[in-house]
Amino acid sequence: MNFAMIFVVLGWVSCFNAVFMLLPAFVGIFYSENAAYSFLYASLISLVVGMLLLLLIKPKKKTLYSREGFVIVSLSWIVMSLLGALPLYLCGAIPEFINAVFESVSGFTTTGASIIPSVEALPRCCLFWRSFTHWIGGMGVLVFIMAFLPLSGAGNMNLMKAESPGPMVGKLVPRVKSTAFLLYAMYFGLTVLEFLCLIIAKMPVFEAVNTAFATAGTGGFGFLNDSMASVSPAVQIIITVFMILFGVNFSAYFLLIYRRWRDAVRISEVWVYLGIIAAASIAITINIRSMYDSAGEAALNASFTVGSIITTTGFSTADFNEWPEFSRTILMMLMFVGACAGSTGGGIKVSRLIIMFKTILKEIRIQIHPKLVKKIKMDGHAVAHETVRSLNIYLIVYIFIFSASLLILSAEGHDFITNFSSVAATLNNIGPGLELAGPSQNFAFFSVPSKIVLIFDMLAGRLELFPMLLLFSPATWKK
Amino acid sequence: MNFAMIFVVLGWVSCFNAVFMLLPAFVGIFYSENAAYSFLYASLISLVVGMLLLLLIKPKKKTLYSREGFVIVSLSWIVMSLLGALPLYLCGAIPEFINAVFESVSGFTTTGASIIPSVEALPRCCLFWRSFTHWIGGMGVLVFIMAFLPLSGAGNMNLMKAESPGPMVGKLVPRVKSTAFLLYAMYFGLTVLEFLCLIIAKMPVFEAVNTAFATAGTGGFGFLNDSMASVSPAVQIIITVFMILFGVNFSAYFLLIYRRWRDAVRISEVWVYLGIIAAASIAITINIRSMYDSAGEAALNASFTVGSIITTTGFSTADFNEWPEFSRTILMMLMFVGACAGSTGGGIKVSRLIIMFKTILKEIRIQIHPKLVKKIKMDGHAVAHETVRSLNIYLIVYIFIFSASLLILSAEGHDFITNFSSVAATLNNIGPGLELAGPSQNFAFFSVPSKIVLIFDMLAGRLELFPMLLLFSPATWKK
Repeated sequence: MNFAMIFVVLGWVSCFNAVFMLLPAFVGIFYSENAAYSFLYASLISLVVGMLLLLLIKPKKKTLYSREGFVIVSLSWIVMSLLGALPLYLCGAIPEFINAVFESVSGFTTTGASIIPSVEALPRCCLFWRSFTHWIGGMGVLVFIMAFLPLSGAGNMNLMKAESPGPMVGKLVPRVKSTAFLLYAMYFGLTVLEFLCLIIAKMPVFEAVNTAFATAGTGGFGFLNDSMASVSPAVQIIITVFMILFGVNFSAYFLLIYRRWRDAVRISEVWVYLGIIAAASIAITINIRSMYDSAGEAALNASFTVGSIITTTGFSTADFNEWPEFSRTILMMLMFVGACAGSTGGGIKVSRLIIMFKTILKEIRIQIHPKLVKKIKMDGHAVAHETVRSLNIYLIVYIFIFSASLLILSAEGHDFITNFSSVAATLNNIGPGLELAGPSQNFAFFSVPSKIVLIFDMLAGRLELFPMLLLFSPATWKK
Repeated sequence: MNFAMIFVVLGWVSCFNAVFMLLPAFVGIFYSENAAYSFLYASLISLVVGMLLLLLIKPKKKTLYSREGFVIVSLSWIVMSLLGALPLYLCGAIPEFINAVFESVSGFTTTGASIIPSVEALPRCCLFWRSFTHWIGGMGVLVFIMAFLPLSGAGNMNLMKAESPGPMVGKLVPRVKSTAFLLYAMYFGLTVLEFLCLIIAKMPVFEAVNTAFATAGTGGFGFLNDSMASVSPAVQIIITVFMILFGVNFSAYFLLIYRRWRDAVRISEVWVYLGIIAAASIAITINIRSMYDSAGEAALNASFTVGSIITTTGFSTADFNEWPEFSRTILMMLMFVGACAGSTGGGIKVSRLIIMFKTILKEIRIQIHPKLVKKIKMDGHAVAHETVRSLNIYLIVYIFIFSASLLILSAEGHDFITNFSSVAATLNNIGPGLELAGPSQNFAFFSVPSKIVLIFDMLAGRLELFPMLLLFSPATWKK
């Protein structure tokens, strides 16, 4: 294990975090808020920690193997979350440290599950920081660092693979650094586009920035206690569209920018993803029609909620906890489906479901013609055996983590739906669950052990399970 | 597709069913019940159908491939269930035919989910038939036929594989016919042993026969409205022990009979199975202690329920729906765990969970030492790649069937826990679920479409998913 190199990367993460925190500090100073100082202190602490690590440790080798890649990614996210919790705790906005960590993890992992009863009471710099953590976490902080810094030669791909969501994450261009830069460029561009649309729809600048950040990272932290219920229908429509856009595989945008239309159209994952959204929106619209004044209002609420849940953003315009069981069950399933691989969304990912579905079809054909040799194909290419294998591992680990979390939460005695949907909402990085953890509620009522479990689930979900599992496996730390 | 051979096997299934139905007819005649005639009529109809098929169809080839094996097994179980529903419907005990089919499927698949509000009002011949279907379904009707009839040479193993629960079902002895005979001999022996124990514990003969049949098949149909709550503690203890014994892999008994102690002790599945039962029983005992007068009473209720759920029997001594959430969650998980492979129990099976767990361990080791080549081992032997592959397929199909069933049920508008636990209770062949479908309730309130879904789930669960899926795939029927 190349410990020196691990500490160096953690040092860089701390330093970048110090820089990130200056932004909310400026926001706080601009609005003359006392909380701004907490961000400056936290930034200073991050800088000192980071510089100490970078100055004291000189790695002999720069190579990172897959094992170190996983460990670095897990530890980076833990360090980032702890540092990110500091200002929220220091300024007194969140009096208990565990709650501040929960909120920070929820931000970086783009979950959006909150422990704050009234976000409207928060200082603006805290609101800004919450949505900015979504933006950083959405595309990944290590990807960000790699885009601007020549970290090392051999191990970059391992870092990128471990931090990017979904199976089959490949390089867009031959160099990892250029891929990282391209990803962030497209991400930045789309965010600016949403910001402009929101401004045109007459949203105030501060709110528009926050909304754009939270949508881009498919996070879901808002600035109103009712999430997005009281903003104008025009703004709701814009958010719906952009939530869905940020849930699309970014390779599709890359291909569109380079005018490779034919390849872009061939990405079946995007079509299935859009198809699921359309089908679910129509079904829920019909199901909730009688609860709303017009079909249009029902359709807007249905499609906003479907877009919010499948992309794992977690914004809400309606308390879907009050919807009929059929709609609630559809939404519960979409929580697991998730967005496309290579997007900023969480969940199991549409491409995994497509491969799963094709595995069944292949098996049926094999049973009928036992001598048939067939490979699963996707977008015209055979899916590597390695991908199918890692999908199976993913599923198994997913089931184990989910069951263990559910069991620990149940010891607190809350009802099954609260526990089940809370685990689903955190492991899939969505935000609100159902019942006690529903969209009009928050996660503060859970005990500390349950909160630790949910924090673990958010991190495990964002990093696609395996890095966090490896971190807690004794075998990882053996020589 | 060898249609002629399929019809011949279905003919035999009908004929055997005709003979099986004579037993409840005798019981009815013995107790001078009118319902006895319904069993005689139904037996006659089965005989006519069976003889017609056997006399009219002369197959040219006797070979059965894996595809035909699956189709035969699915169709046999459907035919058996339909014929088995006839007497219940004809005698007026169950006025709607769909409910009679539900009850019959629930019997043969050893689920034990009932649509009858008061079983105490049923004629004795009907009670006998219900528990006898458990006994036949537990080890499998095709296995029974194979034990006594030289069906065909090449395809027997395919039939046995498709009907026996769990991965890695092997022959105990070189010949399929002898294996089938041995399995039924051990099954019969254990059933008689339980019957004798129950008689010693002063249970009346008729009740003891019924209980022994329902325990042996891990079914769960009883003869009292409160299931097993009002029988004596001694009887409850005997049932607990035998439920657990019938959930053990029958290979273990085979090895014990042939005094291959060392091999018998090496079956890790049995140890893990017993370990889970012990751990769950202790946890629930502590959790429900305050609800009962003595620790002994709590322990008996806890271990009876754990044994009943993990073996998917479904008897109950207590309304576990009223237990604290922690206990309910443990029981909900045990519903999925299920018993050992090669037993009469349902669920996912302990051996599958062991392989899943070992897959994760192997993956962690591979990530740490990427050049490592390691095979998953179980009981000292390497697990075949084929077994791991079919486990993954099983998991995927399981998730798809579960989700689709949940979605269709939710359209009826009942609560999530009712729907979720009903699907879990039928797909895992347990019986009672939670809330509206809890142990003190029944399944009659569901609509006809939901009942059809649950019937499908019971059959799919008993036949380990794939045969039923294949039956409804258009590709199966293409030339």
